[in-house]
Amino acid sequence: MKTRIRICFTERFCFVAVISRPFSSAACFAASLPPADLHGLFLTWRSGQSEASCRKLHSGAGMSEPSPAAAPERLPFSQVTQEDLVFFKKILPGRTITDPDLLESSNVDWLKTVRGSSEVLLRPQTTEEVSQILSYCNSRNLAVNPQGGNTGLVGGSVPVYDEIILSTALMNNILTFDRISGILTCQAGCVLENLSLYLEERDYIMPLDLGAKGSCHIGGNVATNAGGLRLLRYGSLRGTVLGLEVVLADGRVLDCLATLRKDNTGYDLKQLFIGSEGTLGFITAVSILCPRKPKSVNVIFLGCETFEQLLQTFQLCRGMLGEILSAFEFLDSECMRLLVTHLKLPNPITECPFYVVIETSGSDPTHDQQKLHNFLEEAMASSLVSDGTVATEDSKIKTLWSMRERVTEALTHEGFTYKYDISLPVERIYQLVTDMRTHLGGRAKSVVGYGHVGDGNLHLNITSPAKDPALLAAIEPFIYEWTASCQGSISAEHGLGLKKRNYIYYSKPSQAVALMGNIKAMLDPKGILNPYKTLPDNICEHIHL
Amino acid sequence: MKTRIRICFTERFCFVAVISRPFSSAACFAASLPPADLHGLFLTWRSGQSEASCRKLHSGAGMSEPSPAAAPERLPFSQVTQEDLVFFKKILPGRTITDPDLLESSNVDWLKTVRGSSEVLLRPQTTEEVSQILSYCNSRNLAVNPQGGNTGLVGGSVPVYDEIILSTALMNNILTFDRISGILTCQAGCVLENLSLYLEERDYIMPLDLGAKGSCHIGGNVATNAGGLRLLRYGSLRGTVLGLEVVLADGRVLDCLATLRKDNTGYDLKQLFIGSEGTLGFITAVSILCPRKPKSVNVIFLGCETFEQLLQTFQLCRGMLGEILSAFEFLDSECMRLLVTHLKLPNPITECPFYVVIETSGSDPTHDQQKLHNFLEEAMASSLVSDGTVATEDSKIKTLWSMRERVTEALTHEGFTYKYDISLPVERIYQLVTDMRTHLGGRAKSVVGYGHVGDGNLHLNITSPAKDPALLAAIEPFIYEWTASCQGSISAEHGLGLKKRNYIYYSKPSQAVALMGNIKAMLDPKGILNPYKTLPDNICEHIHL
Repeated sequence: MKTRIRICFTERFCFVAVISRPFSSAACFAASLPPADLHGLFLTWRSGQSEASCRKLHSGAGMSEPSPAAAPERLPFSQVTQEDLVFFKKILPGRTITDPDLLESSNVDWLKTVRGSSEVLLRPQTTEEVSQILSYCNSRNLAVNPQGGNTGLVGGSVPVYDEIILSTALMNNILTFDRISGILTCQAGCVLENLSLYLEERDYIMPLDLGAKGSCHIGGNVATNAGGLRLLRYGSLRGTVLGLEVVLADGRVLDCLATLRKDNTGYDLKQLFIGSEGTLGFITAVSILCPRKPKSVNVIFLGCETFEQLLQTFQLCRGMLGEILSAFEFLDSECMRLLVTHLKLPNPITECPFYVVIETSGSDPTHDQQKLHNFLEEAMASSLVSDGTVATEDSKIKTLWSMRERVTEALTHEGFTYKYDISLPVERIYQLVTDMRTHLGGRAKSVVGYGHVGDGNLHLNITSPAKDPALLAAIEPFIYEWTASCQGSISAEHGLGLKKRNYIYYSKPSQAVALMGNIKAMLDPKGILNPYKTLPDNICEHIHL
Repeated sequence: MKTRIRICFTERFCFVAVISRPFSSAACFAASLPPADLHGLFLTWRSGQSEASCRKLHSGAGMSEPSPAAAPERLPFSQVTQEDLVFFKKILPGRTITDPDLLESSNVDWLKTVRGSSEVLLRPQTTEEVSQILSYCNSRNLAVNPQGGNTGLVGGSVPVYDEIILSTALMNNILTFDRISGILTCQAGCVLENLSLYLEERDYIMPLDLGAKGSCHIGGNVATNAGGLRLLRYGSLRGTVLGLEVVLADGRVLDCLATLRKDNTGYDLKQLFIGSEGTLGFITAVSILCPRKPKSVNVIFLGCETFEQLLQTFQLCRGMLGEILSAFEFLDSECMRLLVTHLKLPNPITECPFYVVIETSGSDPTHDQQKLHNFLEEAMASSLVSDGTVATEDSKIKTLWSMRERVTEALTHEGFTYKYDISLPVERIYQLVTDMRTHLGGRAKSVVGYGHVGDGNLHLNITSPAKDPALLAAIEPFIYEWTASCQGSISAEHGLGLKKRNYIYYSKPSQAVALMGNIKAMLDPKGILNPYKTLPDNICEHIHL
């Protein structure tokens, strides 16, 4: 039996990770913890505090598993009865779905790695309906899975067992749009791309853009604090979302649907719900500040020989493109191979180890092109980039962007994909890919890296012909330890959902997780909202406020 | 006795405001409430909810009063004993201040409208010291007033009674600065201007700028979610603050001092402390994302004949200056009169009813000046502006900015000033000034309006030779009702502090205020942190989660 102990000192943590394969026979560092089921254990050392706490990371949960086996045991929620269905049908006639065929797509996530067994899908149209449903479910102790476009990548948007699926699909009305301020107010079920189209006709754009824009709902975007391709320019949803309407677990409506850029009257409650993945409340409406549509958009696609050169290109770019820079994305040659092989997308430039997509958005086409020209001249002269192509027309812009946006799709053709979404200091992001390749040796089919350089956000994907527990055991907790050693985040933008919930301690101290548990207990005392998600399984043991 | 009832229907509220002078004899709409002490009463009607709640707004508190009479009764906190002082002096030798002369400036706010009677000022240097102090105070039930640069305008930064003043003044170290990412980490007591100077030497700037920059501390800026002059361009602190270290009321250290642009591992706890005015925790360190220093800055000072033209100028400006626009501020002719009269600042252009300060920040001086030239040409051609002057040199830029930044100072020469900081839909902001002038008739010395057009933020100031209860009675609740009728905020950026706490219901529904009370009770169950601030006096009656 192979057993390894990894000790890793960082500024904030001292990790003592006990790793073995299979997990069930892991060595145990702390005598008070049973070895069974343990594959990661760490001691936290915090400056200025004597407390050292031991925490257990369950190996049985949080993986990319297609069945509830990945989750902890079903919690003692009630089961849906005929009487419940009568109630739902009375509130939502024709919108209470129980046909298993119709439920299928709502029970399975986009990646097809997590499957629930819900027997009821509810499709409310109004906040009042959501309120009635949650009030009823709370009194009946029925668990509820809020669902938007179901495009999440961490198993957060589908039920784990038989939770009732509460969908925003029919809550898709735009409520108001102010052409002076650019503030949009809409129901949570509006599809991101539809909002974009609506705004573009009015000379505005959405402050976020995602590959999943054709399906994802704005409510889900907010609930997961989606990042995406425009964060570099327009900032996160924590700044652009101005107001939310939320139905709490017991059905009460929290109306924080302000449309003001500034409001310092008390605590900013909407922030609690942004990024809480539907575990604290059900978002029913959103108000969001939208930027003006840029008059000029350019995209360039460059090749770099080394990641170091790519980073230097980024620095040069920030200095020379300044305020018109709106995206700086990268993909490696492995991504390009998948795009060419599986999607037949031709490489627009000569082969390189690294590719960069840079977008500029500005108000003056002449100025923007001059800036771009100067930047390119400088980048070529200093040999930072080896080849490149520029697009100013919509169709070519779309083609170049697809090289970045369709990597996720290309990966699905590779077999099984282990997906990671890591935040790191920008100068470290590719080192993780390299180290992972070395660490895995020939065990993975491919190890590919792409992501948002501007935000220090790496999407690391490891593929295998089929699910491979041995490969997974080699990846985790290696990847989490590596990330924690750089004070990185194990989920930059995807959230924790079902798959990553038990790894939260790699990025958050125990005090913080305990406080999250208290907030959950305060807002959803019965825990009916999106159970088994976001918070770790052992959270109850840690609540101590 | 004059009694008026104001009924005001809006999309979200139905106000029934009962107004009389003097307040003590106000008519009472709801039979269940005693008429004494009542000067504002409103019924809230919420869509989808049957609950209608009556709330009472105390006239005795929340005004610009210079004594604890403005506050509710002293809460039953312990009083500082000799034994307590021995403990503090042991932890903070030489930094436990009890000399009344040295305490004076910490007991009185910048506006000299609120005075506390604290007998102890503590000046810790480290997080560990803060932790020990709060742990002790919590166990002894001693109230604590967190204090930064003491530049707040709503009485939030000084004690109300004998709260211990816990100052960030000696916590002024810069911890790290990453030249690649532009992420600064520093202790909470760093003065904003010092951080700006530090960053400018390194080719970066702070994402916020305030008139009080020479005194205010970054910890206080974050605790009050300060807005200021750059919000239009760089967004709010909710987006730019990446991490916080906070000591909770019981002394526990919450380490959320991340330096990552993206981190979706669980709830974003730091948001709780941003803007909570020191009532939920004591901020000890901050990490913040800083923008690159612009290579070119220009300021123009324009005059407009009407506010409608000023708004059209703003729209034109957003379209033509686009991504280089970094501020759009205004002042009215009354402000100019005060600047000229009291500060002897000469009006840089011909007299106009309205003045605008526009700042651009960009990466290419030639491009920026071209954009500015085109904009000015168009603005003059379409007669939107009647006069103007441009500054590209530092000294002239400073001079033009002082016309906007020094209005607050000029106002202090007028006698007593009633200050309001209102958020409104941008097209309504000056209507409030006009309506207030009509409403007050000759009762005020002057009614002046200035502020951040780009953020829909009006600073409305009403002066009087001395404190004037009758004038105050004419201003409030008129101003709050007016604001609420437009779904505005009664505090855009100043916070609620002591002065505005009881007016929170004009901008937030009861459910939201109740939830704030729950959060306070969870994080600070004894209520020792900054008591009598932010939350309304009756909060305990409303907690019902």
